[in-house]
Amino acid sequence: MDADITIIGLGPAGLQAAIHAARKKVKVVAVGKSGSSSLNKAEVENYLGIISAEGSDLLRIGREQAVRFGAELFEEEVVKVTKEGETFVTVTDHERVIRSRSVILAVGISRAKLGVPGEKEFLGRGVSYCASCDAGFFKGRPAVVIGEESEAAESAVLLTEYASKVYWVHRELNASPQELEKVKKAKVEMIGSKPVRVFGEQSVTGLELEDGRKLDVNGVFIALGAKGSIELALELGIMPDPSGKIQVDENCRTEMEHVYACGDVTGAPWQLARAVGQGCVAGDHAAKVLRAEK
Amino acid sequence: MDADITIIGLGPAGLQAAIHAARKKVKVVAVGKSGSSSLNKAEVENYLGIISAEGSDLLRIGREQAVRFGAELFEEEVVKVTKEGETFVTVTDHERVIRSRSVILAVGISRAKLGVPGEKEFLGRGVSYCASCDAGFFKGRPAVVIGEESEAAESAVLLTEYASKVYWVHRELNASPQELEKVKKAKVEMIGSKPVRVFGEQSVTGLELEDGRKLDVNGVFIALGAKGSIELALELGIMPDPSGKIQVDENCRTEMEHVYACGDVTGAPWQLARAVGQGCVAGDHAAKVLRAEK
Repeated sequence: MDADITIIGLGPAGLQAAIHAARKKVKVVAVGKSGSSSLNKAEVENYLGIISAEGSDLLRIGREQAVRFGAELFEEEVVKVTKEGETFVTVTDHERVIRSRSVILAVGISRAKLGVPGEKEFLGRGVSYCASCDAGFFKGRPAVVIGEESEAAESAVLLTEYASKVYWVHRELNASPQELEKVKKAKVEMIGSKPVRVFGEQSVTGLELEDGRKLDVNGVFIALGAKGSIELALELGIMPDPSGKIQVDENCRTEMEHVYACGDVTGAPWQLARAVGQGCVAGDHAAKVLRAEK
Repeated sequence: MDADITIIGLGPAGLQAAIHAARKKVKVVAVGKSGSSSLNKAEVENYLGIISAEGSDLLRIGREQAVRFGAELFEEEVVKVTKEGETFVTVTDHERVIRSRSVILAVGISRAKLGVPGEKEFLGRGVSYCASCDAGFFKGRPAVVIGEESEAAESAVLLTEYASKVYWVHRELNASPQELEKVKKAKVEMIGSKPVRVFGEQSVTGLELEDGRKLDVNGVFIALGAKGSIELALELGIMPDPSGKIQVDENCRTEMEHVYACGDVTGAPWQLARAVGQGCVAGDHAAKVLRAEK
């Protein structure tokens, strides 16, 4: 099938890009697995205009909006993107072939996983990969941060301002002395061990460590970093920066003409508001450029 | 009073910045006139997660969210910002003095006004300053674009894909030959005259021209450009770029340390989604920097 713009990714950045591009009356096809967006498992209360909502509801409404404005959406995994002359060719696992003039990469990131039982099961019910997103949900309750680097140190200190008690479980420590000083001052309890299991009932009630100790916690914050889902970008010849993100300019253009990127894959903070902001810019600009060329 | 961060502007960018900064437990004071945001008069349907809403409701909810996260809001006009040593001093028309370590400029833009009777009265009820925001509301109905430059040409062509009939009223023309060719091809009716009055009842029904002609239209799109409300930035010594916007980097930092800018004042597209995206980045980063310094 032919399109003006192919959007890869059905998370908030991809959907907002679809809304803004379709609004400008260019042909927009958006593909991806909407279930893979981290927003699906999130509870949202820091997005302007919405006091509180389930992320999955926001995504469902976003899909409706994109379709209403004229975008076509396909719940298919993209397996390949190539450039043939001036045309981008996107292929999905359903053997759909989309030929378009522009591509918007809204492929998100994958947070590094802890890889223990209970982690997946309790995601969104005590397990979180983002303290600055979710700390507020653990007011007056105990929480643990797992990680080695600055991100974990910052998360632990921030959590002390909400949680009744904060543990930091680590194996080695790569945070700076200044950061460790702050962690100490904030009365975070540091534990050199390895988590083996997250447990609970409806939601998390504890974390079990390798040494047999069980921490009574309601929040488990996994701060092990993230990597962009940049394989498709690499296939096109777009190189990520040293931190693994795709660099974009103020119009969300990548280094390759007619290829845009938006949302978490372009860097932190990994927030819904930032994702929709970049999606808006990428979709609007890509459509504007195509309309000017026609 | 003392704060960590002073946010100037209570539109969507300022409020989202307040939400994200306050969430990181720094002291946030946000000041401005929430009534001056253009979102107040807007109907919103292209913002992910919200099928349709009044802009004024989104702002009201945004103010609630900011306060809930711990920001203090004051409905006061900022009359002066200066830097004294390492401290920014913000003064309002209520003689409130706010001393802070950082400032976030979310001061918006002013769209150039036509200055005719009915323009203000029918704003949001037929009069619009943004075709790419509002074209969709005029499906099957006649509309007119007023302006001289590329923005007006683009607006007119885009409107032909929604409206039943599109006029373009201009005095002189500064659009390119290619743009004018497109306008012609899209069957826009061009009229060299000057609007003198927007009229209607509940909403717009027409535009009266200097030559006495009355156009039957339901949409009046004023595309005369915009200027940033950058006086406060200039006072601080921050220079806008040639197009009048404040330049920021990917973290919404301006050229001056501890001064951030977000939302419409940093450039087009003037969209709610972009404003909240930048507000999120500015608030999050400003708070992160201050926390690291403490």
